[in-house]
Amino acid sequence: MKSFIATLMAASLSSPLGLAQPAEPAPLEREVSQGIQRLMAAGLEDNVGLQFVEDLTTEIGPRLAGSDAEARARDWAVAKLRGLGFSNVAVEGFDIPFWSRTFERAEIVSAGGQAMTVTALGGSEPTPEGGVTGELLRYASMAELQEAAAADIEGKIVFLDEGMTRTQDGSGYGVAVRKRRNCAPVAAEKGALACMIRSVGTDRHRFAHTGMMARDGAVGTGTGVAISPPDADQLGRLMERGAVTVKLEVGIDARPAAPSGNVIAEVPGRGALADEIILLGCHLDSWDLGTGAIDDGAGCGIVVGAAKLIADMPGRTKRTIRVVLYGSEEVGLLGGAAYAEQHADELDKHVFASESDFGAGKIWRFQTGFGEGALSYAAAMHQALAPLGIGPHDNSARGGPDIGVLKRAGVPVVSPGQDGTDYFDLHHTPDDTFDKIEPEAFRQNVAAYAVFAWIASETGWDFRTGPVEVEE
Amino acid sequence: MKSFIATLMAASLSSPLGLAQPAEPAPLEREVSQGIQRLMAAGLEDNVGLQFVEDLTTEIGPRLAGSDAEARARDWAVAKLRGLGFSNVAVEGFDIPFWSRTFERAEIVSAGGQAMTVTALGGSEPTPEGGVTGELLRYASMAELQEAAAADIEGKIVFLDEGMTRTQDGSGYGVAVRKRRNCAPVAAEKGALACMIRSVGTDRHRFAHTGMMARDGAVGTGTGVAISPPDADQLGRLMERGAVTVKLEVGIDARPAAPSGNVIAEVPGRGALADEIILLGCHLDSWDLGTGAIDDGAGCGIVVGAAKLIADMPGRTKRTIRVVLYGSEEVGLLGGAAYAEQHADELDKHVFASESDFGAGKIWRFQTGFGEGALSYAAAMHQALAPLGIGPHDNSARGGPDIGVLKRAGVPVVSPGQDGTDYFDLHHTPDDTFDKIEPEAFRQNVAAYAVFAWIASETGWDFRTGPVEVEE
Repeated sequence: MKSFIATLMAASLSSPLGLAQPAEPAPLEREVSQGIQRLMAAGLEDNVGLQFVEDLTTEIGPRLAGSDAEARARDWAVAKLRGLGFSNVAVEGFDIPFWSRTFERAEIVSAGGQAMTVTALGGSEPTPEGGVTGELLRYASMAELQEAAAADIEGKIVFLDEGMTRTQDGSGYGVAVRKRRNCAPVAAEKGALACMIRSVGTDRHRFAHTGMMARDGAVGTGTGVAISPPDADQLGRLMERGAVTVKLEVGIDARPAAPSGNVIAEVPGRGALADEIILLGCHLDSWDLGTGAIDDGAGCGIVVGAAKLIADMPGRTKRTIRVVLYGSEEVGLLGGAAYAEQHADELDKHVFASESDFGAGKIWRFQTGFGEGALSYAAAMHQALAPLGIGPHDNSARGGPDIGVLKRAGVPVVSPGQDGTDYFDLHHTPDDTFDKIEPEAFRQNVAAYAVFAWIASETGWDFRTGPVEVEE
Repeated sequence: MKSFIATLMAASLSSPLGLAQPAEPAPLEREVSQGIQRLMAAGLEDNVGLQFVEDLTTEIGPRLAGSDAEARARDWAVAKLRGLGFSNVAVEGFDIPFWSRTFERAEIVSAGGQAMTVTALGGSEPTPEGGVTGELLRYASMAELQEAAAADIEGKIVFLDEGMTRTQDGSGYGVAVRKRRNCAPVAAEKGALACMIRSVGTDRHRFAHTGMMARDGAVGTGTGVAISPPDADQLGRLMERGAVTVKLEVGIDARPAAPSGNVIAEVPGRGALADEIILLGCHLDSWDLGTGAIDDGAGCGIVVGAAKLIADMPGRTKRTIRVVLYGSEEVGLLGGAAYAEQHADELDKHVFASESDFGAGKIWRFQTGFGEGALSYAAAMHQALAPLGIGPHDNSARGGPDIGVLKRAGVPVVSPGQDGTDYFDLHHTPDDTFDKIEPEAFRQNVAAYAVFAWIASETGWDFRTGPVEVEE
């Protein structure tokens, strides 16, 4: 019998590409393997999941956290999930600090009043009556702004002109988000009238990308807006020619508490493991500018579609598949936090979790976040997913935005890595609409989620640790 | 000696591809050929033309016909053209009926008040105070709307959901424009509250494409708006689910007369042919949504860049190169009409004209509109342009929008055929900005315009007829 230590050592040997040598896949029972084949085929022909996104984005449209539209989306989702035959469908409510834009306008006063494509960042303070007008000061990075002297900035409008890198795994986002979060408060602290950032996005279109800035309660410190990439280019060119003055107006509606909620639905397990939960998550809220198709209607369609495929398998699953459509993700991962709090006493029953919140691009690699002793289970999932064109990845998955809190509480997670090359072209813009979803890639996601959730349920494996085999 | 009749017969013989057999190219003098080589090389490294577009779209930005911005653009162009060393730089003013949007909003009332991306069409009537709210009636084509009974339409909002075909030569535009021109008046005549068209465009983005509708004076009959393609899709999906009600608000500013003008600049000829004019045109005005980079800052950059290259050649040209930056093209080709009227007594001195108004895509074919006896001159131009990757085309060129009136008055024209595959993705949207211009393709245009204008000037050829050689 191969020892656990030997397996670990094999895993630490580097391949020529610098990738860790994978563990031997744990064997699957025949019924589990047959289920995989069936789910994979059915997933690639999914219509339930795709229809779910289409209906949600069409019938409800934008679903701002804490808004009436988000509330309608919860009711809509409850009815839809019951109609699909899910069990224990319920809304789990919580309150959130509410922020919404009411108007936003910007113009380049010094260049004939040219209108700019602008959007307020979530949590922005409004401008005073009549807006603010000031000379623009450009900084190439957040670090540059941090270092700048308050004396230079006071009474001016800060223009933070930092770009974002396009990558397949979306890794450019974390860096770019820093400026979105911090520009307005840092600029305000130094006496600026407002901060205007080059949108956190990778496209070349005349769309401004919204998203949260740092805040405490409903509203943060300072007025923060994003402008489209072509507008940022325009400002850059104008500043090469001389001083630039911009007028900015932002109106908001904010209040300390508004109702939000998570929507939960289950495919109940049977027998001894029925109280163990496989959680598949997504978020139901969206930004207000688009209809929230890639962010994150697609994710909800993927997990609902996959869970429905498993529900349609003959017999009942061993473990319970729980779908969670989180509320208020966009405004601070509030649904994830509320869920963890409301389900604190059953977190140890969460044996596996995954979240889809990166659009509808094809999954190209599969990352696990299992106990060290469960790498052979990761390998078994890699093997099962390979026919879908999905490669292996490492074991450092931290889960998605809303399930990060579960991972930190010890719940094993997987992060199916979608191709996000184009994701930040659309993310948080008016252009995030249903037509941007590519059905073939979407269905590959449904198939993959069905396959790994099925394995997680039917093997009964313990992903926290796995079998620690010791040489006798 | 080959007879003219024989040449004509040869031209009528079809090649295997169904293309006419080209005429033999007329020979070029050595100095003309050397000039071509020099201009081609210089054109492919042009910066004057590209800088012209960059400066115009940056420093002035949008240039709505009849607006203060268009007036600023004229002053700007006069200064710029003088700075480049052009002669006889002048503004030739005329008045136009003025129309401008002041606001435009649309929402889907029956689907939770979802905001739509909408833009008023030029010449649209405003909606009454508080807007109009009505049930949507969808028509798949203008013909369907024409046939519809007024009794069905009265009090409703017409949704004309006709798509546009993407083609390299832009031929889908003419068909699509019909609905833009006629929907509002036809709908109004049948008692509709307004007409909402699927934008005349080929993209999948959340931009509405503006453009003129039919009007008499400053304002036409009926309220006409365009919605973005994703919004049109959304309406289509909602209508499959039941009745759809939309609220629409449009405000306008209109008056019978506002100042516009054409900007003219020359590279003066010398000697016997100096009073003969080679006209290179573009239009200086733009729609208000973008900064008018591809429509038609690029065209102005191309003709200015080409004329400047010729001006920089040693010695003076035989004929006069006249650059005309037309005003108010977008709102009814008004600059072209004014020019023809103001220059009626010298139209016979216009020996050759061309206009660049189809973006900055690479020229892939070259069409002439010469007298039947001048086909060997067309062939000489085809031969000269071939090294730029430009193929021949037929002799049925009608000129561009503003020089159509010249062609109809007998002026020989050429239509360099740009690759317009992507042109209608951007056309008349906020996304028409400088970054969309591909410098390499732009410079190929500059080189081509310089080459054919040089040939037109230095050969002294008569493109109206050419040498009609008769067998003796």
